[in-house]
Amino acid sequence: MQSRYFTLRDYPNGAPPRELFELRQQALPALEEGEVRIRNRWLSVDPYMRGRMSGVKTYVAPFELNAPMEGAAIGEVVESRHARFKSGDKVRHMAGWRDVAQLKGDVIEPLPDMDVPDQAYLGVLGMPGMTAWTGLHRIANLREGDNVLVSAAGGAVGSLAVQLAKAKGGTVVGIAGAEDKLAWLEQHDVAAVSYRGKGARQLAADLEEACPEGYDVYFENVGGECLEAALDNLKVGACISLCGLISRYNSEAPDRGPGNLANLLVQRARMQGFVVSDHWTEYPHFLEEVGPRVARGEIDYEETVEEGLERTPDAFLKLFEGANRGKMLVRL
Amino acid sequence: MQSRYFTLRDYPNGAPPRELFELRQQALPALEEGEVRIRNRWLSVDPYMRGRMSGVKTYVAPFELNAPMEGAAIGEVVESRHARFKSGDKVRHMAGWRDVAQLKGDVIEPLPDMDVPDQAYLGVLGMPGMTAWTGLHRIANLREGDNVLVSAAGGAVGSLAVQLAKAKGGTVVGIAGAEDKLAWLEQHDVAAVSYRGKGARQLAADLEEACPEGYDVYFENVGGECLEAALDNLKVGACISLCGLISRYNSEAPDRGPGNLANLLVQRARMQGFVVSDHWTEYPHFLEEVGPRVARGEIDYEETVEEGLERTPDAFLKLFEGANRGKMLVRL
Repeated sequence: MQSRYFTLRDYPNGAPPRELFELRQQALPALEEGEVRIRNRWLSVDPYMRGRMSGVKTYVAPFELNAPMEGAAIGEVVESRHARFKSGDKVRHMAGWRDVAQLKGDVIEPLPDMDVPDQAYLGVLGMPGMTAWTGLHRIANLREGDNVLVSAAGGAVGSLAVQLAKAKGGTVVGIAGAEDKLAWLEQHDVAAVSYRGKGARQLAADLEEACPEGYDVYFENVGGECLEAALDNLKVGACISLCGLISRYNSEAPDRGPGNLANLLVQRARMQGFVVSDHWTEYPHFLEEVGPRVARGEIDYEETVEEGLERTPDAFLKLFEGANRGKMLVRL
Repeated sequence: MQSRYFTLRDYPNGAPPRELFELRQQALPALEEGEVRIRNRWLSVDPYMRGRMSGVKTYVAPFELNAPMEGAAIGEVVESRHARFKSGDKVRHMAGWRDVAQLKGDVIEPLPDMDVPDQAYLGVLGMPGMTAWTGLHRIANLREGDNVLVSAAGGAVGSLAVQLAKAKGGTVVGIAGAEDKLAWLEQHDVAAVSYRGKGARQLAADLEEACPEGYDVYFENVGGECLEAALDNLKVGACISLCGLISRYNSEAPDRGPGNLANLLVQRARMQGFVVSDHWTEYPHFLEEVGPRVARGEIDYEETVEEGLERTPDAFLKLFEGANRGKMLVRL
């Protein structure tokens, strides 16, 4: 059986050009004992993958050049020499960016049995959802009535973060750019603030208007003007859950940071970086808490789907244009 | 009896000019019941006072223009109509920037009875010392063997912070500018790194050389290049205790911040602002722990003394030139 997969030709400086991604093909060897062959149905593309294209170890190793790229994926077992899996089983694993994966059984997870679409385990009930939950509940220690600000609030992580925050009863404000994202936020009773065409001062004024008493928690996915504006609107004792800085991932040179970090001092605030993989032992806890709410339709989630393996790099690159609403996925 | 005191004519933008401080005199009214009159012997000048000259409430109210300025002071009771105090008692209070203070007894503290010079209660055993202890033990949760970096390490706060950190057995590195401060650090087995004439990249390289495995704790008093260089040298799980940003206090416009805040994410690090007054209920605990070590001579501390009330503004302004070693004081 043939497997088609993407490789990276080089580590980009700045925004990765489309030509950097090369689609290749190889014949898979016969399965060895303990291995499983999977036909992928859904591939995940996520902003953190940009970090793996830097050639420098950050919190994950860089992608190996000219080797199959990796990422979360969901598929169906087509052949198994592992006792735990049989043909037809639905599974999640990290051998994405390809159509057929062949893996040892011990790095494959069976999909949980909940009344949700399979691809939810790549989004609202997968790594992005777990990231939102961890940032609010394990980093910021969200309390009842907390006022919460979320940037990239229409994205995969942000759109769950605003809903989890709403459940605590405080004012929740989301920063987004595209009109449809802003509308989605308003539909979910989240005050929506656009960052487009604004400097940090104007954005700060708009955030203040949306919640004059200030924010207890800022869930940060973006950086740049968003961070600077948020720093001007912290309550005493606030926490900035530093999840991502997507506005900076394609920067060719280091940008300057916010000039108002002194607000951390004035407000005795905490800014804490986190990486969801450090917290993965809590995934069952997250799933138990959030899964049933998704299954009952109490939590809304959006997907932006590109069709076909060939479109995987395009789906990935769209993340940096903010072109996805909710989770960006590739359907094979 | 006459009291001579300093007032502020206006809120400065940028470095305060000397002429902003005006020495005035008034005749004190007779003592009322419950009041105490104190002849000040030592006045404290501290970087945080710059924040009180901004006209904007930060974590302390601004100084009132044309009214007696305030600050920590130590003096001797010369007249008392409060049951707790009698003539000759040594006390600490916040009516500094003047020679004679008249206060209600309930805002005056008797000096603790330890074998240290009186003025130590303005420095190593006063607010600056308590600040060093709080930043390390209550914010950063310093552990045995932690590698600790301290900026403004020759100052009142930093010079205690490096010694408290040394006691935990890890590598301790101090950033300072003046030659005598660097020499003082080396005498105390603290690796000394000068910031002078260096950009953030060079300073980062020097900090890495001083402690290649990186820092668990950064005690931040300065900001600017120091913060940026430190952010490049954090260990996973590090804490930046954000105590002060003296390099920025006289800025006329907001400076840009460090361009490498993403390191907080990569290293899952925490940057936490604190204000020592929030922790003042722990002062007796601090005094019990650190006081005997100072009295036994196990903790060294330096003082820079200006003579005479008239020199108080000059002493204050020297803080921003880094001209003080250890605690800056005015002796009356």
